[in-house]
Amino acid sequence: MKLYSYWRSSCSWRVRIGLHWKGQRYEYLAVHLLKDGGQQKSDAYTELNAMQSVPLLEVEDGGEVRRIAQSMAILEYLEERWPDPPLLPADRLARAQVRQAAEIVNSGIQPYQNTSVQRYVKHELHGDEKAWTRRFLAHGLTALEVFLRGTSGKYAVGDQVTLADLYLVPQLYGARRVELNLSPFPTLTRVEAACNLLPAFQTAHPDRQPDAER
Amino acid sequence: MKLYSYWRSSCSWRVRIGLHWKGQRYEYLAVHLLKDGGQQKSDAYTELNAMQSVPLLEVEDGGEVRRIAQSMAILEYLEERWPDPPLLPADRLARAQVRQAAEIVNSGIQPYQNTSVQRYVKHELHGDEKAWTRRFLAHGLTALEVFLRGTSGKYAVGDQVTLADLYLVPQLYGARRVELNLSPFPTLTRVEAACNLLPAFQTAHPDRQPDAER
Repeated sequence: MKLYSYWRSSCSWRVRIGLHWKGQRYEYLAVHLLKDGGQQKSDAYTELNAMQSVPLLEVEDGGEVRRIAQSMAILEYLEERWPDPPLLPADRLARAQVRQAAEIVNSGIQPYQNTSVQRYVKHELHGDEKAWTRRFLAHGLTALEVFLRGTSGKYAVGDQVTLADLYLVPQLYGARRVELNLSPFPTLTRVEAACNLLPAFQTAHPDRQPDAER
Repeated sequence: MKLYSYWRSSCSWRVRIGLHWKGQRYEYLAVHLLKDGGQQKSDAYTELNAMQSVPLLEVEDGGEVRRIAQSMAILEYLEERWPDPPLLPADRLARAQVRQAAEIVNSGIQPYQNTSVQRYVKHELHGDEKAWTRRFLAHGLTALEVFLRGTSGKYAVGDQVTLADLYLVPQLYGARRVELNLSPFPTLTRVEAACNLLPAFQTAHPDRQPDAER
């Protein structure tokens, strides 16, 4: 497998954790989201993923090479192809909780911290892009904190690692980058600390990627 | 079942199509996203869904009343609980294509046309909120058009209705509301036309909801 990724992309990070969790090896292909006006916008990459986003997984399945974009689509695919160790619980209500938590991040927070969105806010609307990001982060993390108080055990939903944890951990890193105060979110930071003890989360961390910058 | 919904909310609309597709009856509970500064922000509703968003499904399962928010979490739950008629294909690569298409809308387009986001752009950044929405719509729909050229048959992915169609149809309605020119998207409008012939899509249309306004 090949993963098109950027070290600091939270969406790429989720998938890296998933691949490590499933014990799947992959080749890392760096796409620099800032250099050259954004390498994801090159003709060559747009040909692979018209959305011009990372992550993008290239995978062989049924004798053919296929490409899948969008972290949720990739992770559900990994779960269906390699169900063990799982990233979704067996119970359908618990599965719904996991997906609800993951989507609070996926569609409710991360879209507002996207590079292209921050640029638009800064350069075209002359707004404070960090204040913008913090506002939507604070709203989403508040909702997630309330939600996980009802679902969490050792991890976000119960005592097993699930997709919800893969969305939470990179999002908190993003929150720190815009200096959001995390003290109102003790459940989130407790779960994050538990995840950070696990090798799959450690190996997937931005600082340990081949394209990491200091 | 009870569905908290707003007639023009594209996220609610997706779930309404899903419920009708599965032949499930439900009670419609209107949450007015604009009246009273947004009824979704009331204490009573925030208690039910801290994200202050619609849709929210209240469902009895295993003898208990449970609530699920986030359209993707709700629709995956409906699919697992009532697999027939399906909204996901059997083949795992086709499932990944469906989810990729749905997520282009769910996390790549819709978040930028959210009421709270448009308000922030208009009132706090003094920007043109329609131009803002059009920009992200055009980018996302362009990617979706390219993607569906490779996956579509009669519908978005193959010849059966899938989750991808449930995300596409309400998003095109949103695009027309901000006067986006849809002529560059012939695949999307062709699929939309095919969906609009189906009773589940017709019944779920905003104009046919109890809280519809003229």
